[in-house]
Amino acid sequence: MAPPAMENQITNGDEITTKYKLTIVGSGNWGSVASKLIASNTLKLNSFHDEVRMWVFEETLPTGEKLTDVINNTNENVKYLPGIKLGKNVVADPDLEHAVKDADMLVFVTPHQFMEGICKRLVGKIKGDVQAISLIKGMEVKAEGPCMISTLISKQLGINCCVLMGANIANEIAVEKFSEATVGYREDKDVAQRWVQLFNAPYFQVSAVQDVEGVELCGTLKNVVAIAAGFVDGMDMGNNTKAAIMRIGLVEMKAFSKLMFSSVKDTTFFESCGVADLITTCLGGRNRRVAEAFARNGGKRSFDELEAEMLQGQKLQGVSTANELYEVLSQRGWHELFPLFTTVHEICIGRLPPSAIVEYSEHPPTLVEDSA
Amino acid sequence: MAPPAMENQITNGDEITTKYKLTIVGSGNWGSVASKLIASNTLKLNSFHDEVRMWVFEETLPTGEKLTDVINNTNENVKYLPGIKLGKNVVADPDLEHAVKDADMLVFVTPHQFMEGICKRLVGKIKGDVQAISLIKGMEVKAEGPCMISTLISKQLGINCCVLMGANIANEIAVEKFSEATVGYREDKDVAQRWVQLFNAPYFQVSAVQDVEGVELCGTLKNVVAIAAGFVDGMDMGNNTKAAIMRIGLVEMKAFSKLMFSSVKDTTFFESCGVADLITTCLGGRNRRVAEAFARNGGKRSFDELEAEMLQGQKLQGVSTANELYEVLSQRGWHELFPLFTTVHEICIGRLPPSAIVEYSEHPPTLVEDSA
Repeated sequence: MAPPAMENQITNGDEITTKYKLTIVGSGNWGSVASKLIASNTLKLNSFHDEVRMWVFEETLPTGEKLTDVINNTNENVKYLPGIKLGKNVVADPDLEHAVKDADMLVFVTPHQFMEGICKRLVGKIKGDVQAISLIKGMEVKAEGPCMISTLISKQLGINCCVLMGANIANEIAVEKFSEATVGYREDKDVAQRWVQLFNAPYFQVSAVQDVEGVELCGTLKNVVAIAAGFVDGMDMGNNTKAAIMRIGLVEMKAFSKLMFSSVKDTTFFESCGVADLITTCLGGRNRRVAEAFARNGGKRSFDELEAEMLQGQKLQGVSTANELYEVLSQRGWHELFPLFTTVHEICIGRLPPSAIVEYSEHPPTLVEDSA
Repeated sequence: MAPPAMENQITNGDEITTKYKLTIVGSGNWGSVASKLIASNTLKLNSFHDEVRMWVFEETLPTGEKLTDVINNTNENVKYLPGIKLGKNVVADPDLEHAVKDADMLVFVTPHQFMEGICKRLVGKIKGDVQAISLIKGMEVKAEGPCMISTLISKQLGINCCVLMGANIANEIAVEKFSEATVGYREDKDVAQRWVQLFNAPYFQVSAVQDVEGVELCGTLKNVVAIAAGFVDGMDMGNNTKAAIMRIGLVEMKAFSKLMFSSVKDTTFFESCGVADLITTCLGGRNRRVAEAFARNGGKRSFDELEAEMLQGQKLQGVSTANELYEVLSQRGWHELFPLFTTVHEICIGRLPPSAIVEYSEHPPTLVEDSA
């Protein structure tokens, strides 16, 4: 990464210190927490501008005030993260192009369905040497393979894009409960280290792995495993069975990722983005919760119906990802390699009963080394 | 392994089929479930004698009957696994030497503190070419390193010994809830495959890995992580923090095992004995439960006191293992490498408050590749 333009440099004795400007694209629950983490670090670290700009999709609050005005006056995102001070150096900006134009580093943290439109709007509007990171979970898996958000950003904007994933329930991190996260990077270790510095806190321990695809796939595939874990809960099968299903899910996540991208590393799945995010999602989380309700009703009420009732119109990521995955597995003839992924989808669409989640294994026992 | 003696062979057309005789040493809760699994398979598989002998530490029941008589009359271990039929081909035998003398394969499943005495009694009383497997979790970690039960059996009896570990809550497997297990073996894949066949069931999926030490260490070290998970629960820190602590624990389990035995494989920790057993133990289990109570009392009531109150005189494996581990780490100057293991012990003995479980990390963030 080239140093920022001259106006961003300060002389510090004889040394020239580069100062990177940060912009956060997105200001929902997780975006607001990210801005709090980053704003605290830019104040402490010499190589970043103090000010952190946050693009906010403007809304008028019931009080008649603009959301950006309230954030800038109170340092609080009263709509998406009430009660938490973001830091005085966070500046809410309703103008996307204005927010990004001077940025050296861009943090993308919007709902995934908006990213394609946002990227289109940003073409030609950002610095050429900007670095990006995506915090967006829930890319789509198209028939030709996973459609990574980081790849979308890289390709559409012609820039390098890292990812940050992990066991990150925004509201728990907002109140500084201990957590971890994983940065996935492609080539440049120094850039990865800079992202780690920007997000790291005593209560938020960040590590970096050179495996963008592995890290990003974890954030999506775990939702399918959470559906399976929810089925187990709904049938009251106990912790033993649930642990077994989570383990099988983790192994399928790893196997699928490695088949899709040979660069994916086994060790990535021991990181926060892997086993820890899987555990969090299978213990709490709405995918698990609605799947539990589905199983308790014996599969007789559809996911569409339960989602409408339990999620106020939101759709479950896990159900649609399971569907997309199923297409990939069908196209490639991989159903036998991924019995859990396959069975989750077949239960979701009513082809199999929820109890099938523990009955899919009809393979003879094999030595692990043989099947690896 | 040499074939069993001539009397154990049958001719099946032109082929000579060897028939292995099985004896289970131990008849507690897990031992009884193991006998049920095995007895169901010896009936189906040609290469095993139908009869499964189970050594029972004789007791007189409140009714005045002998436990062995009741098991042999009812096919049920009324004391340790009431309500479950073990199989008519399970023969309870109160005479240890008699129970093992014709066995070609021995399954050890007693409380770990009895194994040294049992091995001494068996010297010279078993066949020379017998194969063994240990289902015993909770070996000791002495200052000079882990003292594996499988090694104790191998050395004292001069025989090969595999291990079987996993997310195995006996009562859940007894009622045929889906679960998995891992066989760890040293050299002989055929022997491992034979053990897999003996234990495997549609609801109990067994895999084998060539890593006795890794598999056996998982079964012991997970209890220390469960103590840490209990602290998190007792402080109501939420699923995010709990998942992070479990992940750090898993990584320390792996790192410690690999430092102790360079043969230990990363992949072992993705097996049932690794991540799945860890999850089960950190969700339920008495180590987690008592540690939760300890944290809820702010560390003001000792583990000794809480154990006496909550466990009717039983001692927590996790607390003593943490103590033993701490000795090893002290001797080798490894405390910094294992902050979670170290902190668990220091909390247990009252040197640190329970909240320290999420405050031990004072290292600067590092790239994973750098710290590997």
